[in-house]
Amino acid sequence: MSRNWDEFLAPYKQAVDELKIKLRGIRSQCDLENEHSPIEFVTGRVKPVASILDKAFHKKVPEDKLETEIQDIAGLRIMCQFVDDIKQVVHLLRQRTDFTILEERDYITNKKASGYRSYHVVIEYPVQTIHGEKKIMAEIQIRTLAMNFWATIEHSLNYKYNGQFPEVLKKRLESLAEAAFHMDEEMTRIKLEIQEAQAYVVKKRGKNT
Amino acid sequence: MSRNWDEFLAPYKQAVDELKIKLRGIRSQCDLENEHSPIEFVTGRVKPVASILDKAFHKKVPEDKLETEIQDIAGLRIMCQFVDDIKQVVHLLRQRTDFTILEERDYITNKKASGYRSYHVVIEYPVQTIHGEKKIMAEIQIRTLAMNFWATIEHSLNYKYNGQFPEVLKKRLESLAEAAFHMDEEMTRIKLEIQEAQAYVVKKRGKNT
Amino acid sequence: MSRNWDEFLAPYKQAVDELKIKLRGIRSQCDLENEHSPIEFVTGRVKPVASILDKAFHKKVPEDKLETEIQDIAGLRIMCQFVDDIKQVVHLLRQRTDFTILEERDYITNKKASGYRSYHVVIEYPVQTIHGEKKIMAEIQIRTLAMNFWATIEHSLNYKYNGQFPEVLKKRLESLAEAAFHMDEEMTRIKLEIQEAQAYVVKKRGKNT
Amino acid sequence: MSRNWDEFLAPYKQAVDELKIKLRGIRSQCDLENEHSPIEFVTGRVKPVASILDKAFHKKVPEDKLETEIQDIAGLRIMCQFVDDIKQVVHLLRQRTDFTILEERDYITNKKASGYRSYHVVIEYPVQTIHGEKKIMAEIQIRTLAMNFWATIEHSLNYKYNGQFPEVLKKRLESLAEAAFHMDEEMTRIKLEIQEAQAYVVKKRGKNT
Repeated sequence: MSRNWDEFLAPYKQAVDELKIKLRGIRSQCDLENEHSPIEFVTGRVKPVASILDKAFHKKVPEDKLETEIQDIAGLRIMCQFVDDIKQVVHLLRQRTDFTILEERDYITNKKASGYRSYHVVIEYPVQTIHGEKKIMAEIQIRTLAMNFWATIEHSLNYKYNGQFPEVLKKRLESLAEAAFHMDEEMTRIKLEIQEAQAYVVKKRGKNT
Repeated sequence: MSRNWDEFLAPYKQAVDELKIKLRGIRSQCDLENEHSPIEFVTGRVKPVASILDKAFHKKVPEDKLETEIQDIAGLRIMCQFVDDIKQVVHLLRQRTDFTILEERDYITNKKASGYRSYHVVIEYPVQTIHGEKKIMAEIQIRTLAMNFWATIEHSLNYKYNGQFPEVLKKRLESLAEAAFHMDEEMTRIKLEIQEAQAYVVKKRGKNT
Repeated sequence: MSRNWDEFLAPYKQAVDELKIKLRGIRSQCDLENEHSPIEFVTGRVKPVASILDKAFHKKVPEDKLETEIQDIAGLRIMCQFVDDIKQVVHLLRQRTDFTILEERDYITNKKASGYRSYHVVIEYPVQTIHGEKKIMAEIQIRTLAMNFWATIEHSLNYKYNGQFPEVLKKRLESLAEAAFHMDEEMTRIKLEIQEAQAYVVKKRGKNT
Repeated sequence: MSRNWDEFLAPYKQAVDELKIKLRGIRSQCDLENEHSPIEFVTGRVKPVASILDKAFHKKVPEDKLETEIQDIAGLRIMCQFVDDIKQVVHLLRQRTDFTILEERDYITNKKASGYRSYHVVIEYPVQTIHGEKKIMAEIQIRTLAMNFWATIEHSLNYKYNGQFPEVLKKRLESLAEAAFHMDEEMTRIKLEIQEAQAYVVKKRGKNT
């Protein structure tokens, strides 16, 4: 059975284009109101056909179940500066009325064995087609710049070396993931200390006047 | 009273960006399915502040009623090749579930005194902001390339000469509008005749076999 | 002999992307300096493989001569409001130092038999690749909105009906092209008359003061 | 003396738009030829007026020397996965003929006191304006994702707290910069070991056959 992939992927491509514009809008709005944006930048992509087939093969998904079983055919990624920005992004996603959240997976509290950290939100998004409305699934990954640094490089090594790392290298990638996470934690601590120091100065100045 | 225009216009800008992506999606989808696209191209803009104030002044709209009384702060324009494409575009807009149509104004059947022709659809579109959903109005103008040719040039002359045309020039612009419309009608006739000729050939071939 | 079309077309795609940004810059600059922009909008495309092969076949171009014999693999189109804007655009193109003009073809003074009007400029444009500089050819078509109206529709009819118009329909398309051109001329006359009228008013006012 | 900033910045904006397209083209080309791209992504911006004035004030640059003394009014940033990608990017920049390199500053070998690491290339880029060619300066910063992670956050803290870090926090930011750099080095080591291991396997397989 041969599938017209272009037609199959068209609503996913449309969804990715729309969601990129929508999520980037959060950043513009924060900038405009002079608030700290919990979003540093947003990227999006439709999963390449080869990767869809590969995933379907490994997860034993029959070809007519791709739409419901492969959740990340449409994929969005939101990068944050600080770990606690992630919670705020999730909060903003939950209050939206233009899609429904189906599932949340917290790989930050519960990191993967590889060392991978990110917060995944699976949504159902209505796309308007010339034949009427069509609901598709999309996955939004939310992570800090440090988590993204690690994930980008792990993905690229995995891809090039086809996942065949010797055990000793795997261990090193894991400990790198930990190092990245400690950097995130330290960044947050520094931020909080500066905020406290500033609040103290403001308070003291207030008294003197 | 001074208004923060950037903040006021932000949801309109967001809506225009989203609607451009959404309406252009109709064209991509038709191309993909090898159907004639009723949409040639789509443009969009947020009305400049000076034009909003100008319009509010002439229509005697108080400043706190801009959102409900000025319908084209967010403006989209859809260009079609043939007059009958316009009907099909309106049909596609009516079946969408991502906005509500508030009003339709048919300046094709009932052209304006100046000679202006277009089909206007006023919609209510929900924008997601960091403070929750906000419904705004937007105007979608649908017209043929010939109507757009005339309207673009009339607008540019109007703008440069501040609407101060002597009566005799006004008359000439009007008759130009008619010439443009006759071109549209002639284009449609040619298209239909070719389609008929082809249908005849196909039918005849069918009999011979 | 099978060709890697993606690799062959890559520098053309790059050139089209760069030239779109460059030519649209002319419009932004005019807007900024409050001058009439001779450019209304700019589009660009890389010729689809099927069209390249089709053209090569009809012009008897061998496959290893495509780069030098097919001049419009990279194609840009500049739309103007008024016929005399075209001359100004050509002037602006001639003074640029980021490409070399190889040839100009004036299908406005000398329209094609079909009724087609446009000004074509063939350029040599240096693209920077990872293997060094590569000079490619590109064609820039300059035309008014009315010429574009006609050309878009003629192209679409041609494409759908495979160029098989009966003689009588061909004649009608030709006379439509003439009608479009007369509209352009009339628009120009109107513009000039208004400018004269305004200049007269300004002069008279000057005397009274 | 009041300056028309929009007009002053227009060629810088044009240059940034063109250079973004040009540098992103390197990545597309590598992807197409199935080579590792030394470029992960490219961003660009025109320096905000307030930052230009601030920098001019601190560096005591008179207002008529901005064009020659402030080198980063037009700024591009190239992000790489691995430290040794940076060298390759610099090599690709040096071989281009569409701009001239004026200066290179290697803050990787010689990091700044703050801990900042990046490779800066200052170029002279010819922009085509409606008044002829104009040469402007632009700064291209090249850095790894880890260097960018640190720099983004340091910049954001600096901006929010106006550079008023207590000495102890400064020290912690510095040691974070070192941690980020060690992660880069470790990533490179892992990459090289995997490549060696693979080369060994390929060689061994060759012998057995």
